[in-house]
Amino acid sequence: MILVLAGGVGAARFIEGLVQVVPPESITAVVNTGDDMELHGLRISPDLDIVTCTLADLIDREQGWGIVGDTSECMSWLMKLGGPGWFKLGDRDLALHIRRTAMLREGSTLSEVTNSFCQSLGVAVKIMPMSDDPVPTHIITDTGEVHFEEYFVRRRAQDAVRGVRYVGVEAARPAPGLLDLIATAEAILIAPSNPVVSIGPILAIPGVRAAILASSAPVITVSPIVGGAPIKGPAAPLMRAVGLEVSAVGAAQAYAGLLDGIVIDRVDAHLAPQIAALGLRVAVTDTIMRGPLEKANLSRVALQLAKAHPAAV
Amino acid sequence: MILVLAGGVGAARFIEGLVQVVPPESITAVVNTGDDMELHGLRISPDLDIVTCTLADLIDREQGWGIVGDTSECMSWLMKLGGPGWFKLGDRDLALHIRRTAMLREGSTLSEVTNSFCQSLGVAVKIMPMSDDPVPTHIITDTGEVHFEEYFVRRRAQDAVRGVRYVGVEAARPAPGLLDLIATAEAILIAPSNPVVSIGPILAIPGVRAAILASSAPVITVSPIVGGAPIKGPAAPLMRAVGLEVSAVGAAQAYAGLLDGIVIDRVDAHLAPQIAALGLRVAVTDTIMRGPLEKANLSRVALQLAKAHPAAV
Repeated sequence: MILVLAGGVGAARFIEGLVQVVPPESITAVVNTGDDMELHGLRISPDLDIVTCTLADLIDREQGWGIVGDTSECMSWLMKLGGPGWFKLGDRDLALHIRRTAMLREGSTLSEVTNSFCQSLGVAVKIMPMSDDPVPTHIITDTGEVHFEEYFVRRRAQDAVRGVRYVGVEAARPAPGLLDLIATAEAILIAPSNPVVSIGPILAIPGVRAAILASSAPVITVSPIVGGAPIKGPAAPLMRAVGLEVSAVGAAQAYAGLLDGIVIDRVDAHLAPQIAALGLRVAVTDTIMRGPLEKANLSRVALQLAKAHPAAV
Repeated sequence: MILVLAGGVGAARFIEGLVQVVPPESITAVVNTGDDMELHGLRISPDLDIVTCTLADLIDREQGWGIVGDTSECMSWLMKLGGPGWFKLGDRDLALHIRRTAMLREGSTLSEVTNSFCQSLGVAVKIMPMSDDPVPTHIITDTGEVHFEEYFVRRRAQDAVRGVRYVGVEAARPAPGLLDLIATAEAILIAPSNPVVSIGPILAIPGVRAAILASSAPVITVSPIVGGAPIKGPAAPLMRAVGLEVSAVGAAQAYAGLLDGIVIDRVDAHLAPQIAALGLRVAVTDTIMRGPLEKANLSRVALQLAKAHPAAV
């Protein structure tokens, strides 16, 4: 079984490659829920929905999030009625939030809801949240502490970042089965996601880091930083805020002590010796996932690195 | 101030006539919430929405409910995800339920939510629920006791009806201000709504019947029964189940002891002496509200009857 630690868009694309290379039933994606929030009284799980809808081939591929062909009738009426309008929710999209909220209120766990959505939407990859307990990621900015989505979407990542807090993480329990999956995985792949706000929250759940250290599975990541900048999203200020260089080296250092190897982009090939000096295996390939071929190649390279094949520098 | 006791479609159309005849600010509609229910974790208030959206000129006039031009993307996805599909909710429509549910969870009362919706949608008539407490109407059928909407929509009113129960009504409080409005009203108009499941719940709220009896305002209704059949909806089996004749006479008897007069349709003119014998004033006119002219005429006749003008038989 291959375990993937996953954020949103980058992780979803990476897993799309993986299912071309290994059977989907052999993949488990454990997904960040630090971005989860309540809005309009509904429980929104952005990363879970991105991963689920991408693997169900329902995603709006232009945006990377939301459902293809979606409309926004409900959203515009929510705003007419005085509801908050800064986080756009499509009509189809809203069905996931409404149903999730209803199932949670009826007593289901987020793991159970996620599993049910996968079954309903025909997703064979097993998708699970990092925890059934809410652990909202807060960004500490120079004007105060706000939820990640508020920092990123509402305030357009304009505030200077001083730090990051995974609220309530001390008391959060790993999702049922997660620690066993880590113990028995053949490989643990850390998707090319934001190390601070996508993978960081997963690793901060009590027990997860220790289980990865104890596991005999190789731990391989794909750098989300290419040529000194993230492919997508607000990784740069967040990495800097926690003392990481915004580079493939910084991406490797983000997982110091956990990692066995990293896949970096050809444009960063010159950094391979520096990363190797950290005691890591390094593979160099095209990491920008434009289409199915690039996605499958990236997965193959990551899996080869997991099998300790020599790095193709 | 004119107080209208209101159900759904018939009441909404009646009030549309009333606003042509008197200033909308002088009208208060107190609306049945016995049909309210929770579905998909959302609080649905069918009659409040019908009255509000009709007066906002947003209603789907073909159906009498729902918002004109609405789509059903969210609903079809809710069903894909295993949600109940028997009660159709449009995308725009859903915004009302989502926002209402969120506001109630944040601590607003249903009266406050309703008032907020009226302001947002530009409705000048004051609309209030009969109570801020839930009082679901249950229909006792030969196969069990079910919520009214379940009887009416899900089971298509096919079960034999044995009785009606307003669940929890003993403990329900009238909406804030309702008893004062009854005491000070110039006229109390009972809309042409179902006497058993639309007006019945309002009159069953503790204090409401006594306040109407104590009020000096004339109490006038418009018969929802024309030629021995309801204009719309399941009034016939419900009236029979509570021992009322399905006729304009039965409509008058439904409000025995409260009523001063009733407007009946021309086709029922022959019943006027029988109703007058009950000690009621009777006006005869066209009661089927096809367009604005009929609506305005019906309101005028009802208001004239309230002013104790002689019945125009």
